[in-house]
Order: sequence, then structure tokens, then C-alpha cells
Amino acid sequence: MVKVIVIGSGNLAQHLIVAFQEAEQLERSIELVQVFARHKENLTSLIHSDKIVSNWSQLQTADIYILAVSDDSISEVSSQLPFNNQLVVHTSGAMPMENLDSKNRKGVFYPLQSFTKAKKVDFSRIPLCLESENKQDYEIMEKVANTISNKVFHIESQQRQALHVAAVFVNNFTNHLYQIASEICQENQIPFEILQPLIQETAHKISVIPPIQAQTGPAIRNDQKTINAHEQFLKKEEHLQLYRILTQSIQNNGKKL
Amino acid sequence: MVKVIVIGSGNLAQHLIVAFQEAEQLERSIELVQVFARHKENLTSLIHSDKIVSNWSQLQTADIYILAVSDDSISEVSSQLPFNNQLVVHTSGAMPMENLDSKNRKGVFYPLQSFTKAKKVDFSRIPLCLESENKQDYEIMEKVANTISNKVFHIESQQRQALHVAAVFVNNFTNHLYQIASEICQENQIPFEILQPLIQETAHKISVIPPIQAQTGPAIRNDQKTINAHEQFLKKEEHLQLYRILTQSIQNNGKKL
Repeated sequence: MVKVIVIGSGNLAQHLIVAFQEAEQLERSIELVQVFARHKENLTSLIHSDKIVSNWSQLQTADIYILAVSDDSISEVSSQLPFNNQLVVHTSGAMPMENLDSKNRKGVFYPLQSFTKAKKVDFSRIPLCLESENKQDYEIMEKVANTISNKVFHIESQQRQALHVAAVFVNNFTNHLYQIASEICQENQIPFEILQPLIQETAHKISVIPPIQAQTGPAIRNDQKTINAHEQFLKKEEHLQLYRILTQSIQNNGKKL
Repeated sequence: MVKVIVIGSGNLAQHLIVAFQEAEQLERSIELVQVFARHKENLTSLIHSDKIVSNWSQLQTADIYILAVSDDSISEVSSQLPFNNQLVVHTSGAMPMENLDSKNRKGVFYPLQSFTKAKKVDFSRIPLCLESENKQDYEIMEKVANTISNKVFHIESQQRQALHVAAVFVNNFTNHLYQIASEICQENQIPFEILQPLIQETAHKISVIPPIQAQTGPAIRNDQKTINAHEQFLKKEEHLQLYRILTQSIQNNGKKL
């Protein structure tokens, strides 16, 4: 039985609390001992209030302390912890393991997913990227990770940074392209839902074919007539600039094939 | 019973042939009378060879002739047809209905999806965007469309052009972002599959929340520290340029909220 304490009350903390409690109910060898949160009220609908503490002195012992706090707070919160030589991990894709205070054993427990409060996620499919200072700690982290996810990966700090940048491309930037498309639809009285099957298919296709092979459309075909028509259609300077630079980038990439 | 003839043997023609034959088997009121193809050999595994003709003089009569040919061939092929005053439709998202020769009644039957030979698609979920010169023809087209798809939309030429541009953003450009991410993974010995749940979730999320509300990440948070770290990480000038322009565009967009 691995004893876990979650520190934080934000978006990720809430998803972790739900996931760990589900794992407990499924009688996996995990126990969510406590949650540390400055603001209890965020969590009272998720976990029994006896388990929520907001004072360091009330903290019990655990095998692993998971900091689900903002990137900027990792260093400060980890230095406030009232104990030494315990396993303390952060959950950030952007921060190196070294941001944690050195008085405890360090690790990173990074769930590679975008969490929105409004939308429940299935934790079992979320890749968990783990890193630790030593093998024994890695094994504890792996046990914990396996109770909530089927996809556990060993990812070093440098790789995690690469993943974090790559995630910005496939999540934030992709979502922004969806946003531009929805704007174009709105301006032309077209329901955005009409594009959703294409969006889903585009995302699914790359689980079968590598993206470089899945590329279609006027840019890769060097179909200058269609490209010109699209450029003429786009009235907003920002959209036009993005259209051009992405078209050019697809064409540069196509030359590698 | 609506009689259909498909003209063409490429990617879309093949998917249509499969879809119409499935509709026939399901005893929907549709009959794929013939397929006109210069190159029979592309199609012999999909349809009985008696039904494939490669000479205009062998063409039977039908209620609708669907031109599944390249954008550049629409005008030429439609002018070669050896009959007048029939319903002839093209399947292009990029071309106006007027590209069809005026000797026949015109229409557009545009399936909004990206077709890859290597991957079977479920036609029933593909939005079909229809346009015609008159109401009677629209009704024929609608009957045909309903035999293969559950999502039939009336879309005028100007709207179709908007959709075609929007589709480039959510399909070609998004796929290119996937490609960049897969490159970053490869350079750092990370399996690209680790990003796939995030890719799927990003695509799914916008069926629940509009993209402008789904936006997360360093750009929208104005998290300059993370942005700087990502910019430092990206060694390839083209990736860096895209990172900057997309970050800026997300931030400009955020100001509207």
C-alpha cells in the first residue's frame, strides 16, 4: 500500500484527487492519506473534509508527496515542507526536477494532458512521465502511476522539456487553428460543427499513418491556384500571415520526402 | 430510386463507389448505374467491371452525374459529357459551381473530409455540402446524400469557399503542427505515441467547449518565463518563427475575451 499526499487545490490537484480515490475504490494498493490546500472550499465536493488540511503541522506521513501547484510555486512550497528526506515530486512539464528543494528526495510526476475543470478526463489513458533521482524512488512513483494510468513512461528532464514544447504545438497551437476556423465559420454563417468530423479524423489519422504521410491539401500539392484563392479570401492580416507561413513550412517539409 | 453515375477513379471516386454500393446493399433508394473511368484497373477490386466504362458513348442515363475529378479537370470533363440538360455536379470544396459547363444543370456535392487511400472512412459521419441551381435538383441531391451520410448541409458557393479555407486550418495546418511535434519527439528519442492522447483530447474538447474557451498554455497565460524557455529550446529557425507567430496570435485573440 503506497501512501500519497497531494499538495494543491487547482485543476490538476482536483483531477488527481478524483483519480486516486477511484483507484482506492478499485482496491488498488494506494491510499490518498491527505490533501494539503490553502483553500479547502475548492475540494469539499471531491474529498471528505477531514482529509483536507491547510496547516503544515497537521500533515501526516506518506510515501510520496505530490506537488500539484503552479510552476512558480514549486520552489517555495517545496522549501516550506516541514520534513526532510521524503519523496517529494512536482507535476510540471516545464520545470526541471532541480526546482524542488534539496532537503527532500526529488522526482517529477508529469501527466501529459490538458486539464479543463469543465471536462472530466479518463486518467487511465493519460501518459504519466516519471523521473527520479534514484531507482527505489522511481519504483514507488511507478507503483503510484500504475494505479491511475495505463501509460507510464520514464522521461528525463531534457526530454520532458521537448515534450512540453511539442505539447504546445499539438494542443495550444492546434486549438488556436480550431479557433481561427471557428471565426471563419461564424463570419460566413456556417455552423462550426460541420468541421468537427474533419477535426476528429485529422487527429485519428496520425494514430495510423505518420503525420508527414498524412499531409494533404493545396500546400503539399503545390496547388498555387487554390493557395491564391485562399489568400484572397482571407481578409484578416493575422490569418493571412499564418496561412502563408504554414503553407511555406509544409512545402519546405515536403521537400524532405 | 435515384440513379447515379460517378465519373472519376481517384481517391474520392473510390470512396464514393464503396459508399453507394453499401447504400444499395442496405436497400436504400439508390442505384450506382455506372462509373466512368479512363483507368479501369484502379476500380476493378471495388465494382463489377461491367459497370465501369471508359468511353463516353457507353454511358447510360442517370438522374445525377457526380464528377469526382481534380479541380482543374472539372471544366473540361463537364464540357465533354455527350448530353444536355442533365444534373451534373462536382465534388470540389475549392471551385465555384459555375466551373461546370452550362449545357447541363449544375450542382455541387462536396464531402467535407480528407480522404486517404490507406484509411477507410465512415461516410455516414461525413458532412455533405450541397448546392444547386434550383430546388428540384437540390431535392435529388439531398436524396442521394441522405443514402450515404447523416450530415447533409445546404452550403452556397461563398460559404463553401470559407469552409474550404477553414478546413485547411483544421486539417492541413493542424497536421503540420503534429508533424513538427513528431520531429521534436524524434530528435529527443521520445515515442510520438506519448502525445496522441493529448492530440485526441484537444480535438474532442472543442465538441464540448468552444475553442476560444478551451485555450490553455503559456501564451494565453502570458507566462513569459515558459515562453522564453521554449524559444530557447527550439533550435530550428522555422519552428521558432512558427512558435512566435502562433503565440502572438493566441495572445491577440485572448485580448478579445
